Amino acid sequence: MNKLLSIASLAALAVSAPALAQETEKTEFPSPNAIVDAAPASDWVKMAPSDLLVMDLAPGAEGNARRVVIQLMPEPFSQGWIRNIRKLAEAKFWDGTSINRVQDNYVVQWGDAGYDNPESGETEQKALPDGLETVPESEYLSKLTPIDGESSNIDNSDPASDAKEGYRDDAYGTALFGLGWPLGSGNNSLWPIHCYGAVGVGRNYSPDTGSGAELYTVIGHAPRHLDRNIAVVGRIIEGIEYLSSLPRGKGQLGFYEDASKRVPISSIRLGDALDEDPAPAFEYLNTESKVFAKYADARANRRDPFFIKPAGGADICNIPVPVRRVSGE
Amino acid sequence: MNKLLSIASLAALAVSAPALAQETEKTEFPSPNAIVDAAPASDWVKMAPSDLLVMDLAPGAEGNARRVVIQLMPEPFSQGWIRNIRKLAEAKFWDGTSINRVQDNYVVQWGDAGYDNPESGETEQKALPDGLETVPESEYLSKLTPIDGESSNIDNSDPASDAKEGYRDDAYGTALFGLGWPLGSGNNSLWPIHCYGAVGVGRNYSPDTGSGAELYTVIGHAPRHLDRNIAVVGRIIEGIEYLSSLPRGKGQLGFYEDASKRVPISSIRLGDALDEDPAPAFEYLNTESKVFAKYADARANRRDPFFIKPAGGADICNIPVPVRRVSGE
Repeated sequence: MNKLLSIASLAALAVSAPALAQETEKTEFPSPNAIVDAAPASDWVKMAPSDLLVMDLAPGAEGNARRVVIQLMPEPFSQGWIRNIRKLAEAKFWDGTSINRVQDNYVVQWGDAGYDNPESGETEQKALPDGLETVPESEYLSKLTPIDGESSNIDNSDPASDAKEGYRDDAYGTALFGLGWPLGSGNNSLWPIHCYGAVGVGRNYSPDTGSGAELYTVIGHAPRHLDRNIAVVGRIIEGIEYLSSLPRGKGQLGFYEDASKRVPISSIRLGDALDEDPAPAFEYLNTESKVFAKYADARANRRDPFFIKPAGGADICNIPVPVRRVSGE
Repeated sequence: MNKLLSIASLAALAVSAPALAQETEKTEFPSPNAIVDAAPASDWVKMAPSDLLVMDLAPGAEGNARRVVIQLMPEPFSQGWIRNIRKLAEAKFWDGTSINRVQDNYVVQWGDAGYDNPESGETEQKALPDGLETVPESEYLSKLTPIDGESSNIDNSDPASDAKEGYRDDAYGTALFGLGWPLGSGNNSLWPIHCYGAVGVGRNYSPDTGSGAELYTVIGHAPRHLDRNIAVVGRIIEGIEYLSSLPRGKGQLGFYEDASKRVPISSIRLGDALDEDPAPAFEYLNTESKVFAKYADARANRRDPFFIKPAGGADICNIPVPVRRVSGE
């Protein structure tokens, strides 16, 4: 089940970039946002509507709409779970389910909370659609296959040599951007990582890997210890505030003890299944572009007027990939 | 104004600890929480009530009390601002002020939002108490003075030598625990860092350093680029959920555009000025203890049943210093 990934298709970007830093020192120091705003249209990559998952919560206390938009990960990452998620959305599985868990500085989790059948005395779960895959744990990683007889330059078995080649080690492996996403790497593998807003697949104890019916998102400091232990399938690109500002659950792990606190999910649909005109449309900044490198450098070395001491580096989760909403077709 | 700090008084703890990891592999693998729960009473350090800042918000929508407890930093860190904060609390400066800013994945900020005087057409600010210090920017850092003629072992000008001595470099310098707090270090200096729940002092453009009247706390991924750029004066040890779950502000930087959204602050008092019996009492786990080292190792190498792949390291902000409430005297 391992996917091939051509190394040539990946951006290799140092999280700190001293060369760029020296260049910009001579001129003005635009903020990271100003750099992104000045990016040419050709550096923005359109997201396919079929790669969006749109969750509508029941209206808020003031009757306001609450829509959360998720971008699903591209190949070769987590595709087994993503196929399941597409099937679950097509089957309207999540309609009528709920947000069941809000744990401070950790995650918000949603799915079928179950129904306590008073006749049987049992908690009954909604039936899953047919044909969901059981995805193996090996799919938490994507193996890299060297091309053209060269050995991978993403092998971080020797951290010092990595540093030379422009990658940056952190406590969790080597961090880099590729295909529009923050990634971890090491031992000829790549994996998606848990930054703020990452969407993952809830599971039981190993060897269970979860079906995708139970999802969560990160609402606190990046819990990177979950990397390679749970499938990451996407990231929230709009509306995370409707999840991150929910009252924290008082039960164990932040589950709502009082079922009336659960937030109803009206529907979850793939972006191309929405009956809306225009459909929601988004773009992300090409992580292989020069503008992205300049943006990442500015995040690592803040020189806009507020700052007096540039950090000289940045945690990969402190360099969110810029995303913007565009007018649909 | 630089403070002396004896290096001998500091814990030097690697964020990953392979030696410990090997020891525990032979036996059972308690979770980080289980390790903390088993700590002897002697490893817990009592916080002085005078080092607590207790903020009571107006009751929530359901009439519930909303109390947030902050622990102030110990010497030698940020003491000029902390002296100001003590004066502001004694003067009851914050009573009747409000939470004015909630920016998703960033900060919650509170203080005097000002009053629009309809007669003058001006926004008027509450008068600050007399005698507040203007703290210099040099106080964002604490200089280390080598003792006994030895040079500092916290100089990270050579990252490789640091690694050998048990510290861990991250993108922001060298990370270590000391005096119960996560700290950054480099160039013979130490500084407090912005982890989730850290409390800092809002300021205007440099050379302003803020008085302490305007405070914020981190409610997202650690914004470490703020380290050494703003004073960190403490951390929230209870009740952060009353801040982190507030609706996000729709104005620039997450300020509430609609003044009616601001959350009133009933009072902010030092812990020893509260007229309560028992007074709130807390302890933190001694970061110089063996139990803390074991806990930090378990956070970096999760082997409790849910995990299949220990990370082998941890970001310092993913190792929160354990704090517990105890019965007051």
